[in-house]
Formats: sequence, C-alpha cells, structure tokens
Amino acid sequence: MTSSDLFKQVAFIKEIDKLKYIQRKTRLFNSDRQENDAEHSWHLAVMALILAAHANTSIDLLKVIKMVLIHDIVEIDAGDTFIYDTQKNHTNTDEELIAAQRIFGILPEAQAQELILIWQEFEEGITAEAKFARSMDRFEPLLQNTSNNGGTWAEFNVDYQKVYDKKKVIKEGSNTIWNYAEGLIEESVQKGILKKS
Amino acid sequence: MTSSDLFKQVAFIKEIDKLKYIQRKTRLFNSDRQENDAEHSWHLAVMALILAAHANTSIDLLKVIKMVLIHDIVEIDAGDTFIYDTQKNHTNTDEELIAAQRIFGILPEAQAQELILIWQEFEEGITAEAKFARSMDRFEPLLQNTSNNGGTWAEFNVDYQKVYDKKKVIKEGSNTIWNYAEGLIEESVQKGILKKS
Repeated sequence: MTSSDLFKQVAFIKEIDKLKYIQRKTRLFNSDRQENDAEHSWHLAVMALILAAHANTSIDLLKVIKMVLIHDIVEIDAGDTFIYDTQKNHTNTDEELIAAQRIFGILPEAQAQELILIWQEFEEGITAEAKFARSMDRFEPLLQNTSNNGGTWAEFNVDYQKVYDKKKVIKEGSNTIWNYAEGLIEESVQKGILKKS
Repeated sequence: MTSSDLFKQVAFIKEIDKLKYIQRKTRLFNSDRQENDAEHSWHLAVMALILAAHANTSIDLLKVIKMVLIHDIVEIDAGDTFIYDTQKNHTNTDEELIAAQRIFGILPEAQAQELILIWQEFEEGITAEAKFARSMDRFEPLLQNTSNNGGTWAEFNVDYQKVYDKKKVIKEGSNTIWNYAEGLIEESVQKGILKKS
C-alpha cells in the first residue's frame, strides 16, 4: 500500500457516507423511524458475529462480515429496491453492477476487484458464506416487522405466502434460525399481523 | 449453540437497535446532520477492512472489526461522551463497565464474556488490534470535521493543540495514516478552520 492508495481509499470512505441517506422501507424496532442502509449493514454485521455458530456448515466469518458490510453500497447509485416490489427484480440488476464498478472502482484496483467479487458472491448466494450472509439480510426485517405489528407487510399489503417464500432462504444459511423464523411467521398469522389471502 | 442461546441472541439483537438513536457530536460528511453510533460503527468497520494493510504491524482483522462494531454499544446506557469534554473522562468509566455487563450480559454467558473482553481490549488500547481500531475511531471524525469547515472544532471551540493531542494516537495504529492525518490537521490551520490559540 502506498500513500497514493490511501488517497483513493479516503475518497471511497467519503463516498460511502452517502449510504447513511439511503432509506429502507423497514422501520427500527418498535418504531416508526425508517432504517437507513448504513444502520442496517451494521446490524447485520453484529448479527453475523453473534449468530455464526448457527450456520449449517463451517463458514469464514470474516468473509460473511465483509459481505454484509458492503452488500448495499451499490444502492448509493441504484437506490433501495423493496424486496416485495413486483415491478423491479431485486437482485443483481445491470444498474447495480454499474454502481458496483463505479463505487468500488474508486479504490486501488486490486481492492476494487476484491470487493466487487465479494459483492457478486453475496448476490449469487451460492457459497456457504453468501447463504449465511443472505439469511442475516432476511432475518433482521422479519424481527423488525414482528416488533412493529406487521410493519411493511401491513403497510404494503404483503401476504403470508410472499413472506414465507422470501424468508425461506434463511434455511439455506441456518436450519436453527429458520426454525425460529418460521415460528415467528406462524405466530404473526395467529396474531393477525400477517394475512393469509 | 442451542435454541435457548438463540432466544438470548435475538433479545440482544433487539436491544442494540437502540444504538441507532445515540447521536454523536460529529456530523456526516459535508452535512449538518449528526451521525449516530450505528452509522459510525459501520463506517469504522468498512474503514478497517480497506485500510488494514496500512497497520504498523500484522493485525487480526476480524478482531479489529469486532472491536469497532461493538465499541460504542455501552453508550446505549452510558451515552456518548464528547472526546473534547473536559468534565468527563472519555474512556472506561465505571458507568461504561456496568453498561457492558448489562448489555453483553443479555447474550449466552460465554459469548457475553468474549465480547466484554474484546470491548475492554479496545478501551485499554494496548494490543496491535486495539491500536488500529482506535486509530479508525480517531480518523473518521477528522475526515468529517475537515469536510465540514471545522465541524465540532469550530462548534465547540477546540484548538489545534487539543486536536493534535487526541489525534496523534493514530500513529500507534498506522504511521502512514498518521502522516496523512497530520497533513490534514496542518492544512486545517492554514485554511483557518482550526485555530492555534
């Protein structure tokens, strides 16, 4: 690493500050204040740290944490896509790839390439690390919505089956967490905060 | 890990959501919006990830990232102490230790102990990992204040010598980053956004 690398890294550090302005649809726990992407990424990183032992297979925890820390940085350019949006595909759009190339491209080249690959690995969801990282990304809003009387499910009229279909990928990362999550989904139906239509 | 561990971990995940409400004095880049502790912790984690190669000695990056992710969680109970506050000692107060025991104590016992030790290691600032993590914690607000025409230095009338004394611990983590930081401090004096009194 040279001091010219450091200049590029500082430019990147400044650029990613914008993630603190990207609002998600989901709201903080027991709150009506929307969460932003930086807060969300921090929360997933701490969750990965404390829940790692529940992963279905042995995982490289540092890689999982890298994934969740950077997974939403593309939204600085591409914006947040609501997971239940039926008009727009959530994953790995061309727009997001262009964003990844621009934003990670601010870094020294080898580092830019490393982070683009980690982001792509997360998006593809094939490796054990990507599966676990994605299970964190699905688990946090489930906890938030159940604490908020249905939260975005109620607000955007999302029914049980759609929630179940999106959340079941948690199982690919962790059977234990999925058992817990499935229980929360069923409980939400019983409480009337998630509708079977 | 058992499902009873998972209940405790979920309770902890909900509790630490409160970090998103703890406002720091420093403001986002080129902004008058104050940063909260969750956003700050996320930013430091990404900084550690991309700046690790500038560390003075070989470091365990996963441990550094754990440190910065959890270093401010005690502020949920103890509140944010401004680094230039002359009335209150910033580091490792009794109040913060009680907070650490309560909040990390929500987790399964072995995990609680691990995180309390990591938090204490950060606070003591002796190991290579703690020194590097602390250099990130000092470097981010320096970048913010220089982007905000002096930011909290101007707002709270903090002079060059106080800034220099607080920031020079960056050198213990990374000579390269300190050289850069020292240049920013001198430049701030030349620009008139940091006063020599």
